[in-house]
Amino acid sequence: MQETRLDTARIRAARRVIDPIFLDTPLYRCEALEPALGCTVSIKLETANPVRSFKARGTEVVANLLADSGSRAAVCASAGNLGQALAWSGRGRGIDVTVVASRFATVTKLDRIRALGARLELVDGDHEMARERAAAIAQYDGIRLVEDSLDIETCEGAATIGLELMETAPAFDTVLIALGGGALATGVGHVVKTLAPEAEVICIQPLGAPAMTHSWRQRRVVTTDSTNTIADGVAGRYPIPAVLSDLLLVADDAVLVQESSIIAGMRLLLTHAGLVVEPSAALGIAAILEDPDRFAGRHVVTIVCGSNVDVDAYHRWVGAAPIHRS
Amino acid sequence: MQETRLDTARIRAARRVIDPIFLDTPLYRCEALEPALGCTVSIKLETANPVRSFKARGTEVVANLLADSGSRAAVCASAGNLGQALAWSGRGRGIDVTVVASRFATVTKLDRIRALGARLELVDGDHEMARERAAAIAQYDGIRLVEDSLDIETCEGAATIGLELMETAPAFDTVLIALGGGALATGVGHVVKTLAPEAEVICIQPLGAPAMTHSWRQRRVVTTDSTNTIADGVAGRYPIPAVLSDLLLVADDAVLVQESSIIAGMRLLLTHAGLVVEPSAALGIAAILEDPDRFAGRHVVTIVCGSNVDVDAYHRWVGAAPIHRS
Repeated sequence: MQETRLDTARIRAARRVIDPIFLDTPLYRCEALEPALGCTVSIKLETANPVRSFKARGTEVVANLLADSGSRAAVCASAGNLGQALAWSGRGRGIDVTVVASRFATVTKLDRIRALGARLELVDGDHEMARERAAAIAQYDGIRLVEDSLDIETCEGAATIGLELMETAPAFDTVLIALGGGALATGVGHVVKTLAPEAEVICIQPLGAPAMTHSWRQRRVVTTDSTNTIADGVAGRYPIPAVLSDLLLVADDAVLVQESSIIAGMRLLLTHAGLVVEPSAALGIAAILEDPDRFAGRHVVTIVCGSNVDVDAYHRWVGAAPIHRS
Repeated sequence: MQETRLDTARIRAARRVIDPIFLDTPLYRCEALEPALGCTVSIKLETANPVRSFKARGTEVVANLLADSGSRAAVCASAGNLGQALAWSGRGRGIDVTVVASRFATVTKLDRIRALGARLELVDGDHEMARERAAAIAQYDGIRLVEDSLDIETCEGAATIGLELMETAPAFDTVLIALGGGALATGVGHVVKTLAPEAEVICIQPLGAPAMTHSWRQRRVVTTDSTNTIADGVAGRYPIPAVLSDLLLVADDAVLVQESSIIAGMRLLLTHAGLVVEPSAALGIAAILEDPDRFAGRHVVTIVCGSNVDVDAYHRWVGAAPIHRS
C-alpha cells in the first residue's frame, strides 16, 4: 500500500490521549439482524458515550494538542456531532470553543452544543457555508480552525476504532464505513489495510450527497451543487483533496444508497438490535439491503457511528407518530 | 457488614470466565438527562451485547462450571432474558439448554431463545409456574436447574458490574438497581457495600410486583397473589429467603414506583439518551422522577439492565403508533 497521511504508530499514541470513556466501545455480533441481511453482522457501537458519536475520539486528540501548546480557543464548522465533541473535549481543558453550523442542522445537536458550553453561530446556508464562516472566524480571531477530515488528528482519532476492530477474533471479511468528509473512512481504512489487508473496506454515502463517492470513482475531486439526504452527518459537497488521496489508497469500494434504504436500515437496527441511530449510522445496513448477494455468507462489521437524532424526526422516519416530549 | 453469600474474591474470579463481550460495558455521564432529573446521572449500559441484557454475566459463570464438570444439559425458568443468556452461554459450550417461560412472556424474548438453539417450553401461567415446571424437568431429566438469584453464580456474574462501577472516578453517591429475583441487587450491592460502604444502594421495583420490596421492608418473605406490571423482567411473586437475607445486608432502601413513572423513564431515556430500554431498565429513572428531592445534587448511577422489548409494545408505551415491521 502507498502511504496515506496516517501513521499507525501515531494512531496508537492517539489512544493514550483520548479519554477512555470514548475507547474500547462495544463490538458484538448481532444475530437477530442476520436473517434479514443474509450475512454475519457485527456492530461496532460508537453511541454509548457522552456525545453519542465517534467524533470525540478525534476532538480529544485535537484538544489535547491545543492544551499542550497553550491554546485557549478553537473554532470548527459542524453538522452537529463534531461540534458537540469539540465542545466536550474543549470544556474539560479550558478551551473556548466556537461552533459554526447551518441553521438547518438537527435541533438536538445544536441544543447539545450549547449545553456543553460552546458558542454556537448559525449560518443561513449549508455545511459548506458553515465551513467558510468558521475559517473566517479563525483568521479574524487568530484561533485554531479545527477542520474535520483535513486535520490529521481527526483522522487519527477515528482510526483508533480500526485498532479496536483489529483486536477481535474471529476476523471479519468486510467493514462498512459511513463516508462524509472522510476522517472515519480513511482513519479506519488505513488501519485495516495496514494490519489486515485482506479485509474489504467499503465506504457508503447517500445518493443525495455523493460528492466524495463520485470523487473516489473518478480519482479527482468532484463537487456537487447541493445535497438532499436525511443523513446530515455526511452531507458535504466539497471533498478535501488530501483526504480523497488517502481514500483512494484505502477504500476497496464506495457505494451510494437510497434514502429509503437508510430508513429501512434504521428500522432494522431498532427492531432487531434495539438501537436508535442517526441516518449516517445506518448507511452500512442500507448497503447490505441494497446488494445482499454481495455480502451473502460474509462476516460484515458495520460502524454505528452516531445516535443524535431529533426524536420526532426519527419517529417519522421509522414510521411512527410523534411522541409526547418529556 | 455481616457476610452475604457473596465473596469479592470469587466475583473477581468470575470475571475471568465470562466472555469479555459482556464485560467492561459503557459507563458514562449523560448530561442531557440531568435537567429533567435534577441530579448528576451516569448510565451503566448492559444492552450492547449479543443478548441485550446483563444476564449473560451470570450464565457465563454457570455454563463454565457446567462445562468443567462435564454436564451436557441445563434447564431454567425465565421471563426471557435469563433464557436468552443461558441459551447463548450453553450453545458455545455444547450444553443443551431448555428454557421454561410463561406463554405471556415478551414475544421477541421467546423468539430469541428459540433462535439461539434452546428448547423452549411454555406454561399457561406466570413466571412462578414456569419456575415450578423447570424444577420438575430438572428432577425428571436429572439435569442442572439454573435458578436465577438463588444460584450464587448468577449473583456473582451480576456482581461483576459492581466491580466495574468501583473502577470509575469520580465516585458516585447512589446506585439505582432494578429489583426482581435479587441477583443484580445483591450482587452489585455486595460489591458496593464492601468496597465503597458510603455509597447508597437503592433497589427499585414496580408497585405492581412488590413482593421482594415488601419482604425487605418487613424483613421476612412476603409473597403476592399476582403481578401487574409492564416490567416483565422483575415480575416475581415468591422471593427466595437466602436472597432476601443478602438483600437485607446490602440495600439501603427498596422503593416501589408506578407504571406511569416507568413509562416516563423509558421516554426520557429515548429522548435524551437515545436508548431503547425495556421497562425494568427504566426503574432507576422512574425512582428519580418520583422523588427528585431525594436525589437533588447527587451523582446517581443507574444500571440500564436490558433492552429486549417488543417494538410495537414499546411504541405504545412511549406514545407512538406501531411501526411497519421489517
